[in-house]
Amino acid sequence: MKRIAILTSGGDAPGMNAAVRAVTRKAIHDGMEVYGINYGYAGLVAGDIRKLEIADVGDIIQRGGTFLYSARYPEFATQEGQLKGIEQLKKFGIEGLVVIGGDGSYHGAMALTKHGYPAVGIPGTIDNDIPGTDYTIGFDTAINTVLDAVDKIRDTATSHVRTFVIEVMGRNAGDIAMWAGLAGGADVIVVPEKEYDMKDVAAKITEGRERGKKHCLIMLAEGVMPGHEFAEKLSEYGDFHERVSVLGHVVRGGSPTAKDRVLASKFGWHAVELLKEGRGGLCVGVRNNDIVASDIIEILEQGKHQPDMSLYTINKEISL
Amino acid sequence: MKRIAILTSGGDAPGMNAAVRAVTRKAIHDGMEVYGINYGYAGLVAGDIRKLEIADVGDIIQRGGTFLYSARYPEFATQEGQLKGIEQLKKFGIEGLVVIGGDGSYHGAMALTKHGYPAVGIPGTIDNDIPGTDYTIGFDTAINTVLDAVDKIRDTATSHVRTFVIEVMGRNAGDIAMWAGLAGGADVIVVPEKEYDMKDVAAKITEGRERGKKHCLIMLAEGVMPGHEFAEKLSEYGDFHERVSVLGHVVRGGSPTAKDRVLASKFGWHAVELLKEGRGGLCVGVRNNDIVASDIIEILEQGKHQPDMSLYTINKEISL
Amino acid sequence: MKRIAILTSGGDAPGMNAAVRAVTRKAIHDGMEVYGINYGYAGLVAGDIRKLEIADVGDIIQRGGTFLYSARYPEFATQEGQLKGIEQLKKFGIEGLVVIGGDGSYHGAMALTKHGYPAVGIPGTIDNDIPGTDYTIGFDTAINTVLDAVDKIRDTATSHVRTFVIEVMGRNAGDIAMWAGLAGGADVIVVPEKEYDMKDVAAKITEGRERGKKHCLIMLAEGVMPGHEFAEKLSEYGDFHERVSVLGHVVRGGSPTAKDRVLASKFGWHAVELLKEGRGGLCVGVRNNDIVASDIIEILEQGKHQPDMSLYTINKEISL
Amino acid sequence: MKRIAILTSGGDAPGMNAAVRAVTRKAIHDGMEVYGINYGYAGLVAGDIRKLEIADVGDIIQRGGTFLYSARYPEFATQEGQLKGIEQLKKFGIEGLVVIGGDGSYHGAMALTKHGYPAVGIPGTIDNDIPGTDYTIGFDTAINTVLDAVDKIRDTATSHVRTFVIEVMGRNAGDIAMWAGLAGGADVIVVPEKEYDMKDVAAKITEGRERGKKHCLIMLAEGVMPGHEFAEKLSEYGDFHERVSVLGHVVRGGSPTAKDRVLASKFGWHAVELLKEGRGGLCVGVRNNDIVASDIIEILEQGKHQPDMSLYTINKEISL
Repeated sequence: MKRIAILTSGGDAPGMNAAVRAVTRKAIHDGMEVYGINYGYAGLVAGDIRKLEIADVGDIIQRGGTFLYSARYPEFATQEGQLKGIEQLKKFGIEGLVVIGGDGSYHGAMALTKHGYPAVGIPGTIDNDIPGTDYTIGFDTAINTVLDAVDKIRDTATSHVRTFVIEVMGRNAGDIAMWAGLAGGADVIVVPEKEYDMKDVAAKITEGRERGKKHCLIMLAEGVMPGHEFAEKLSEYGDFHERVSVLGHVVRGGSPTAKDRVLASKFGWHAVELLKEGRGGLCVGVRNNDIVASDIIEILEQGKHQPDMSLYTINKEISL
Repeated sequence: MKRIAILTSGGDAPGMNAAVRAVTRKAIHDGMEVYGINYGYAGLVAGDIRKLEIADVGDIIQRGGTFLYSARYPEFATQEGQLKGIEQLKKFGIEGLVVIGGDGSYHGAMALTKHGYPAVGIPGTIDNDIPGTDYTIGFDTAINTVLDAVDKIRDTATSHVRTFVIEVMGRNAGDIAMWAGLAGGADVIVVPEKEYDMKDVAAKITEGRERGKKHCLIMLAEGVMPGHEFAEKLSEYGDFHERVSVLGHVVRGGSPTAKDRVLASKFGWHAVELLKEGRGGLCVGVRNNDIVASDIIEILEQGKHQPDMSLYTINKEISL
Repeated sequence: MKRIAILTSGGDAPGMNAAVRAVTRKAIHDGMEVYGINYGYAGLVAGDIRKLEIADVGDIIQRGGTFLYSARYPEFATQEGQLKGIEQLKKFGIEGLVVIGGDGSYHGAMALTKHGYPAVGIPGTIDNDIPGTDYTIGFDTAINTVLDAVDKIRDTATSHVRTFVIEVMGRNAGDIAMWAGLAGGADVIVVPEKEYDMKDVAAKITEGRERGKKHCLIMLAEGVMPGHEFAEKLSEYGDFHERVSVLGHVVRGGSPTAKDRVLASKFGWHAVELLKEGRGGLCVGVRNNDIVASDIIEILEQGKHQPDMSLYTINKEISL
Repeated sequence: MKRIAILTSGGDAPGMNAAVRAVTRKAIHDGMEVYGINYGYAGLVAGDIRKLEIADVGDIIQRGGTFLYSARYPEFATQEGQLKGIEQLKKFGIEGLVVIGGDGSYHGAMALTKHGYPAVGIPGTIDNDIPGTDYTIGFDTAINTVLDAVDKIRDTATSHVRTFVIEVMGRNAGDIAMWAGLAGGADVIVVPEKEYDMKDVAAKITEGRERGKKHCLIMLAEGVMPGHEFAEKLSEYGDFHERVSVLGHVVRGGSPTAKDRVLASKFGWHAVELLKEGRGGLCVGVRNNDIVASDIIEILEQGKHQPDMSLYTINKEISL
């Protein structure tokens, strides 16, 4: 291939810019041309496409968000939208596409693949819930942002001897709650992957209180229930001076961590290697520290994200 | 005086520990003994009091919260509670009291003063809404914590071309909203001190959009109305892709900034100087860079916090 | 005036971008045109000048450094250079100039003033050593960056029971050392403004050690002597397991704090107000929380920066 | 086993406290008693040993350094020292020992093993240079601290169009330089594992300058040569306006990242599992995301740390 394009889609995640930078520079290094598509699939269909040079991706590795912008675009689920997108790509002479994003973005890439157009997916989402990879771009930054908040909340929880229910993102996956929970010294972690018994939660808090523990932190994935609802149910078992903290959009932004920037750079580099060899219909990922490429159709149809449940078990035993 | 005590009361604020450290060490340096009272006025009445040595306040200058703990204790508004408190202080041979906190804490100190017991107040609250001082301990840290969140939110707002309503603390005072708003490049600041017209807000966003501006940030003090309510009212004037972010308890904690630690150290040092001279019934503050002491009764009965409204005006003119 | 220009000069300081943004937008708000000059006085003489629009200063309020670049340019001390600069300004129809920087930058502005060209100085330097203002842009960020390092060094100092000599910037002014020293809980602060006795320093460390203190931090302004030299001299009085940490260029960069962004916005806004009224030959500053304008010739010839020495005294008494 | 002990040794690393917490609480959870040894092997030989309860390790997961203190103690390399240590352990009825630290610490653990005393090593050092594990405790925090400094330096480098040589830790291993270099967008990475040609370095800078690149960052592992020496040699090939920044002790401290806290918790948990089964003579590590235990003698005698050299290659191709 001589000319490829790149877009970011879905919710923004820290490290997306680092991935766009890596794709752009690796491609130029290898003698290819690179085009940036604004606003994800919406911009693809609309033809909001421009050539990227080395300097266009300078000084962005450290910035959160995505300088290619992102947008929701349900219309790309239709065959009409997909063919329109391919038409635009061909108009610009673009032979392959890199898509950075989450589940929805992968579906777009799969659709292009089924139409015979070479697309490669890069997992970029703070939720870490994409099959085919151990880690997604943005996850490491997100858990450190949550952790920073937890450390601050602990100050107040300790000062006032309170119980905090901290609601974090994670509709289907408890990764953020488990990582930030174990790292933040949470007393209880509540995630979609595991049943919980409110009576046990209450008992654990009481036990800690009796031993003189000042703060109590409950890390709750939003997928289980909203924080306020959880606090209300908990209050049926006693007065735990509970407060609720919902960590929302703040967790999406911020300068990416070292790990996210390195991961993004590796993913971007490998995506170009694949397209260079003319290979599409794939998504890159990291498995046991190795960068791998999986069939995107297989991943979406049969893959399943496997969170590291050992964190849950360990936290249970050391959060005395 | 030969023996004084210190307590923290009301909501915790970053820098309270630095103030307790300064009081303790300055007093010991000047040949006095210092006692720490746990849990604010509740601990005072209950006699939860212990001697503090130099090492007890070591390694706490950088920590958020208050290691003396805090508690709400409405009972201290009664004469009975106040006399019980004075009784406890006398039992321990304590001749003067330093109280760190906000409005409620000052009222406790004023009550003691009216009973003839020497108390000195130190303004400690993130809201900056205490009369008698230009700045309170914790305010500088709080606005930087808010700013950090705003910078993160801007990443996402830009990436998705969205309008964010950011609700920050401030029931009666718009200080946090104005400082963090001007510093964060907010398009609109909405505070209790100023009327606003939703039509103008909508017009400003539209104007920015038309000029190609990607993000729009509205900084809202909670005292005006909740963020969600504001967003809903705004949406009556058009579709601004608005999202709401409520920055809650996270803003209370965290390691204090340099300014807050320096201010806390100065306040603590001066409070001891006053008690050493046998002076009570006062509260310390900073006025035009000078540390001052005001009559606590006067301050509470006639004082009024004056926010720096020039920030509002300047932001209006430079947030194009 | 209808057309003004702005340049940044000397060492970069966090908040310079916020000041450029404020100048640009305030001027446009007031119906003026604004030109940005790259690379300070060097770019002025070379005519490296371009028009700035609202969007050019978007998304820069949070960024360290200066997007107008800076450069050392001793040639501007000559009459020839100055006249060349004025020629360039006139060529572009520019009627007034805002200069952001430190001492050297002010001298350039003074020279223009003496030639009858209206220039206004804004104090921007991390050292806080400019007369005519209590605080300079960048100082608050710098002391917080130093403080962050001190907090990290304390971890290691405590873990290994060591004495750290921390050398910070400040050739003639001890502001950084005093603020970060008091805020960081330094045991000893050594600044150009005060004599010190190495024997006393050694005695203080020994005293702390005997009381069980683990870490010892000495905050040293570079103007007194290099950190390694200080450590060597100290070691003549005993083995204090001393280590040296030199905080260099890292302290110049970084995202500006809330205070620096607010100060920069105020300064920029006021500088435009002055030029709008046709007033030049001035420098803005903050005095007792008020924004003031002083005669730049007077300030440079008779002004003297007055550091807040109360920090030194207070630290001496509470760093037991 | 019914009673185990734990010590930290060598340079402190962020996350050591999280590991001590995990060991202590996991052991108590499993019905064992835990003793903390102060000052590493020095405290072991001196008998500076105390029982740890649940609350002793409360509120430390977020703190840098090691609350058990560390110390260099070459005497433990002698048989006499080792036997004295075992004698102390037996005196306290301690049946197994967990050692957290780097290479030197492992040698102590190996010696105990050879004397028949069960010891388990946990890799804790910021350098990531321990065989038997992909990552050590503290490495992730250290590269993020370096990265934070690099982002700040970039501000100044860009503003002044300068070349910065950033010297980071790493005597034999280039891990820190490679990770922080790729993540920080370094133009050139110089590590002990790879030859470099100063002429190529100079050519690369020139190339970037000609393309309009403002900043140039060279990430140098201290093991290659000191930063000042490198800058001097570079200057023989042209005037690159080079500055040197040495990131020293600051990189050792700070609150651990999420990854380091999780890793430390896992390591601590597993070390106790091993001792519970009566197994010693091992060191824990992480291999391809799995926690593993290796024979400590084998690891020290034949193991070799394998840095991820793909980072070097990728950076070379994308740092245009």
